[in-house]
Amino acid sequence: MDYVASLRKIPLLSKVENEDLKFLSSMLKEKRTKKGENVITEGDSGDEMYVLIEGTVDIVKKTIYGDEFVVATLDAGSNCVFGEMAMIDSDKRSATVKAKEDCVSLSINRKDFDRFCNERPKSGVVLLRLIGINLARNVRAGNDNLRMVYQALIEEIETK
Amino acid sequence: MDYVASLRKIPLLSKVENEDLKFLSSMLKEKRTKKGENVITEGDSGDEMYVLIEGTVDIVKKTIYGDEFVVATLDAGSNCVFGEMAMIDSDKRSATVKAKEDCVSLSINRKDFDRFCNERPKSGVVLLRLIGINLARNVRAGNDNLRMVYQALIEEIETK
Repeated sequence: MDYVASLRKIPLLSKVENEDLKFLSSMLKEKRTKKGENVITEGDSGDEMYVLIEGTVDIVKKTIYGDEFVVATLDAGSNCVFGEMAMIDSDKRSATVKAKEDCVSLSINRKDFDRFCNERPKSGVVLLRLIGINLARNVRAGNDNLRMVYQALIEEIETK
Repeated sequence: MDYVASLRKIPLLSKVENEDLKFLSSMLKEKRTKKGENVITEGDSGDEMYVLIEGTVDIVKKTIYGDEFVVATLDAGSNCVFGEMAMIDSDKRSATVKAKEDCVSLSINRKDFDRFCNERPKSGVVLLRLIGINLARNVRAGNDNLRMVYQALIEEIETK
């Protein structure tokens, strides 16, 4: 299938040449996820990165006590890339991504992504920048959460 | 100055073509930092990424109470890239980097980095992957810290 129109809607991809978006599109796999089901699950292996093109997903993490908490919500079209971390470092999934409503996402695995970057490096640079911005946002969000929980811990200790 | 030999020591850059490393080298600025001084300071503006080529630095963060804690230590030659986040997203410095001993680092600013990636996209892809791996490691380290502090918080609440 041709996903060029869907990819074109991602702001940072708007400047990628049509020919390269077509090549990228040919590598993508479509995945449909029903409301309430997981697109990816924390702790699993998997090296695919996803672009959400329909619906909304929650990024969910588990505490050591098994409670789930939502760390972010992603909408198709805007901030819509996920799973990029395991694709970059081949480590386990760091969070669960759960469909908040019926969703459609497109995935690319690490091997195809590397091939794309090597064969179309100009566009590879654009994709890797997009991933970098996403990862940087995640680091900063993690820092904010840590600061908040740390403050709560100190307050608990002081009011003992 | 020619920093090709220093750059060549970074594992992920070992496969970058000599010509491109020379071009990259021509964009680098050398910075010497005395033991105990900051290379970069949390909260400051600045869009340079650094490669540590001599010495050791601590990555230090401040709690809201002003206490400093070391989140990582970097050595020249191995895990030696820092400051990449503010270069990627143009936001403020998320941590202080303090020289544990006299240090030499090489910096590249965002404009030159973008120029390098655009003019030498094949090597740009390699650099951006290196940055991605670094950022992914930071996200995972942040997750681990958050889990630890969260657990401590719950234990504090339960033993009240």
